Amino acid sequence: MQQQIAPTDGGHLSGQFRNTAHAISESRPYFDAPQMVDLMAVHGQSTTGRTIAWGNGPPESRPQVIDFVRCSYLGLDNHPVIVAGAIDAIEAHRSLHCSCARTRLNFDLLGELEQILSEIFCARVLVFSSGMLANLGAMPILASGQLTGGRKPVVVFDQFAHISLACHKPVVADETRVETIVHNDIDALECLCRENPVVVYVCDGVYSMGGYSPIKELRQLQERYGLFLYIDDAHGISIFGRQGEGFARSQFPEALGDRTIIAASLAKGFGASGGVLMLGVADHEVLFRRYSLPYTFSVAPNLAAVGAALGSCKIHRSAELGQRQRRLAQSIHLFDHRIATAEQGNSVPIRTITIGSEANAIAIAKALLDRGFYTLVTFFPTLGQERAGIRVCVTAEHEVRDIERLCDVILQKIAEITGKPYPLR
Amino acid sequence: MQQQIAPTDGGHLSGQFRNTAHAISESRPYFDAPQMVDLMAVHGQSTTGRTIAWGNGPPESRPQVIDFVRCSYLGLDNHPVIVAGAIDAIEAHRSLHCSCARTRLNFDLLGELEQILSEIFCARVLVFSSGMLANLGAMPILASGQLTGGRKPVVVFDQFAHISLACHKPVVADETRVETIVHNDIDALECLCRENPVVVYVCDGVYSMGGYSPIKELRQLQERYGLFLYIDDAHGISIFGRQGEGFARSQFPEALGDRTIIAASLAKGFGASGGVLMLGVADHEVLFRRYSLPYTFSVAPNLAAVGAALGSCKIHRSAELGQRQRRLAQSIHLFDHRIATAEQGNSVPIRTITIGSEANAIAIAKALLDRGFYTLVTFFPTLGQERAGIRVCVTAEHEVRDIERLCDVILQKIAEITGKPYPLR
Repeated sequence: MQQQIAPTDGGHLSGQFRNTAHAISESRPYFDAPQMVDLMAVHGQSTTGRTIAWGNGPPESRPQVIDFVRCSYLGLDNHPVIVAGAIDAIEAHRSLHCSCARTRLNFDLLGELEQILSEIFCARVLVFSSGMLANLGAMPILASGQLTGGRKPVVVFDQFAHISLACHKPVVADETRVETIVHNDIDALECLCRENPVVVYVCDGVYSMGGYSPIKELRQLQERYGLFLYIDDAHGISIFGRQGEGFARSQFPEALGDRTIIAASLAKGFGASGGVLMLGVADHEVLFRRYSLPYTFSVAPNLAAVGAALGSCKIHRSAELGQRQRRLAQSIHLFDHRIATAEQGNSVPIRTITIGSEANAIAIAKALLDRGFYTLVTFFPTLGQERAGIRVCVTAEHEVRDIERLCDVILQKIAEITGKPYPLR
Repeated sequence: MQQQIAPTDGGHLSGQFRNTAHAISESRPYFDAPQMVDLMAVHGQSTTGRTIAWGNGPPESRPQVIDFVRCSYLGLDNHPVIVAGAIDAIEAHRSLHCSCARTRLNFDLLGELEQILSEIFCARVLVFSSGMLANLGAMPILASGQLTGGRKPVVVFDQFAHISLACHKPVVADETRVETIVHNDIDALECLCRENPVVVYVCDGVYSMGGYSPIKELRQLQERYGLFLYIDDAHGISIFGRQGEGFARSQFPEALGDRTIIAASLAKGFGASGGVLMLGVADHEVLFRRYSLPYTFSVAPNLAAVGAALGSCKIHRSAELGQRQRRLAQSIHLFDHRIATAEQGNSVPIRTITIGSEANAIAIAKALLDRGFYTLVTFFPTLGQERAGIRVCVTAEHEVRDIERLCDVILQKIAEITGKPYPLR
């Protein structure tokens, strides 16, 4: 499979936006590393809290590992109200799935869920079966100009915008101009706003490898230039805001209006399954309900996802949400107290410990696993080459002693494997 | 919202592949038709068989409508074994969803499902949370040349290939040459095979508006020129083949090999929720498990979907499958006996009654609904302008008298509304 790509038509050695063959051939050695095999595609069974029974076989015979990979930041994925919601919905309809586009027909519970989420998020909420599909549907509509007064925008992507957004750049570019700017480069964005009458900015609220967008500054550009914002807040949802409106939505105190769309996840912090779009105005809602491709040509979330989300809505409207948010803040603080990362001090539960060498990062992750901690080793093409790292997601459900011990073992294994103390220079 | 699109950058009035603004402005009047309002975005509750309780409110107070829209061709979506499978899986894990990429960690039941599906379909099966996501992940890998010996292919789309494939043409075109040929034009495809060393053909097995691909002829081109086939058999799965391998897979008597990939749905005929890819060789499996974007950066099907699919596997391996397939064949025959469509006589359960005028098609669908039959009215941009139609999906669960009465009412309403007898010329 180690192959050099030879173009057959003389003109397409690599794309303007994408070079899949290059990404594959360059990353292959890391994936092929023997230690990597143990870290990928693991099957497990969730037991209690953040502990998982590792591998196959009966749970009681499997090693217990503490998981810092899953993004259930508030620990809701095991919550009995959410699990019961999923089961109740299936039992009520004696069916899991409505096998047609929801533009035509769907279960009444889905309408109920969208209504409740619209109240919680103070927006017009559309539910999708995943965040990736919500984004897929939005990109061509953004490019069409129908969201920006009929004028085609220049669509500007943050260089770190999630792949579920960035992978559609060629689709957007087929209809309008696409630009990519350096991560969080507000000055570059302002230049583009000055030079072009209609600009859309596509970014994440909270970035999956840590960090976040400067929403306040983006709102200033919006006020000054009419900038349209499309913010994927998959990782920011539920963990911020009185009712869990999320990192992005909670920084728009009023209605979203006609120049902002926020995408988010119903998995991750929310603890259920699926994705949402938060829209500000009726015209946008009509457009998406008619023309978003997954809305029209794919399926709605299945009933279990709808029921689980209805269960999570109850938690989002109770005092328990705030309690879990505060516990999460304590977990983050605890981690930061022991290990300094680029994200130290922010209130987002994702920390990436930069290692650099891919081989070292993989070896460290494997050593952590052998000590009972599952972390996420990440490298090219997700990160740049020689910029590999270990991502840790802390949650409200991690025990104090587990976070402390994880940090100790991380520092110890970095020193052992790289021969240098952390932070590595 | 009725807006003329004015380009703001002087160069992008419409795309090479897509003109979303045009599709929106041209189709708006049909969606806006008062009668259309009643036909779209309906909430209902499945009761027994193919009957649904229409609208909101308690089921017993709602009108009963016989549904010919959903694609549960074998009537499995209500099957107690499938419903129980979904609930059992959630109860076993006390969780619905594993909130991380399955390249890292997932429930053991998912591995079990892929193993059983691999046996049933005689292929290496990867499960996705929807067919649309399975296709999204495959297109860049196809374009990269990594599936075709490291040589970039010309990627040829059938003009009617499902939108979940066609929407990625700009993504493929960013990496290699894209061609679109007339529906099922084997001669045109053979020309391209002669002129180019590596060709991939992207098509549906069974088309969502009726009809199918000539698999035998495609296999001949494969043998003669090494043509690579990517076939989306979402609508063909389960309804053909001894174990429900589907329309496409059942026409490859041996192993799939290294030049064929079949995508399919775990909803529709299969009766559960999600999508699959059937791969032929280990190298392809490694590629998809590492680089398919939804596999790496989105979520696996939730546990309810996995459990439901495991339930459906039991039915696929029992005599019940053949019984339901035969009952479906009878339903199709019954319909064809009363109404001649372009699809008359084929064994696919989708029939499109061509009306032509969008306004007439909408009026006919509304009249059918008023008589207790829900059918799917379809028009631009799904079909060409002035080529609107009524799609009917018959299933193994429809009663003889319901299909007969549906046909009678269709013929009656066409005559009343168009003033002409069917077929319309």
